[in-house]
Amino acid sequence: MLKLYDYLASGNGYKVRLLLHQLRIPFERIELDILRGETRTPEFLRRNPNGRIPTLELEDGTCLAESNAIQWYLAEGTPFLPEDRLGRAQALQWMFFEQYSHEPYIAVLRFWTHAGWLAEKGAEVPERRERGLQALGVMERELAGRDWLAAGRYTIADIALYAYTHVAHEGGFDLGPFPAVRRWLERVRSQPRHIPITQG
Amino acid sequence: MLKLYDYLASGNGYKVRLLLHQLRIPFERIELDILRGETRTPEFLRRNPNGRIPTLELEDGTCLAESNAIQWYLAEGTPFLPEDRLGRAQALQWMFFEQYSHEPYIAVLRFWTHAGWLAEKGAEVPERRERGLQALGVMERELAGRDWLAAGRYTIADIALYAYTHVAHEGGFDLGPFPAVRRWLERVRSQPRHIPITQG
Repeated sequence: MLKLYDYLASGNGYKVRLLLHQLRIPFERIELDILRGETRTPEFLRRNPNGRIPTLELEDGTCLAESNAIQWYLAEGTPFLPEDRLGRAQALQWMFFEQYSHEPYIAVLRFWTHAGWLAEKGAEVPERRERGLQALGVMERELAGRDWLAAGRYTIADIALYAYTHVAHEGGFDLGPFPAVRRWLERVRSQPRHIPITQG
Repeated sequence: MLKLYDYLASGNGYKVRLLLHQLRIPFERIELDILRGETRTPEFLRRNPNGRIPTLELEDGTCLAESNAIQWYLAEGTPFLPEDRLGRAQALQWMFFEQYSHEPYIAVLRFWTHAGWLAEKGAEVPERRERGLQALGVMERELAGRDWLAAGRYTIADIALYAYTHVAHEGGFDLGPFPAVRRWLERVRSQPRHIPITQG
């Protein structure tokens, strides 16, 4: 059985959990406390030298890291991945956008809020808030014109961006000015076999 | 003909240039001055709403953004992309590692050095230096055991990480303590049809 090294509050972990559930693939979830350094032990670093969850361990012991690469592995050959070359590249475009221009601002402010670190982070907070709002603006512009990010249907690109966008308010982001994003969140939430981020 | 919106000093642009050259695909290169806001004009934002180079314009006018997604598009069906499912996911793992754990530290310190912004960035500089050294450490550990990052051969995962690693010294990083990384840089450089980052 697949083993998923995970942290329940993580949107990156949630991407993989949600996809596994929607694909009806059974897995064993192993919770690691990232705040206590459980992803930086020598044992875990043998699984992922970058010391991060999610990490997926295949049945032969091979480990795969990076939430969006794990999603790609699981989605190949299923409707969650576009079948044409351009559609696949467009899905990847949004997944790289997520990791570079969205997660470092929207997910990190949520994490700092949960951990109680906002005060000590000082000027970094408004800087990251501004960049997070820019990312939401890019999504709003895109989703005002179409229902899904790639291939005209629900794919892993939507899962990748749903993960932290739907909990952006926990980091102090108001989605009020982003109506197309809010409608898209509702569309994602209404997909068959959807599960919330709180479900392990 | 393909059009590549680019900025010559950019390692992200270089990834695409190098791959196009190695695939013998002709293209028109359009240089944009990112320091003068040429990627934030209304005209360019219609091509890439995130306002970044590289952006590839296909012959029908469709635009594709994110260096690693563009690489994926160009490499499909060629030896630059692994043909097996696990190999493709491992290539993506390293490409997401590059954009999340490597580029924001190693590329950004190089950019700040070139732009003369190191002094005004203050405490962010040593923080990013530390994270950049961690990324180089992850690569060293990996490349001590094998020649290439994925699939046992030179792929777009190697191009993705070569782009900013080979100019890390321009951002003040000393590759002396990373001998496996230095040998891998030499292997990448000795591939057929390699071009330097200074070649448009």
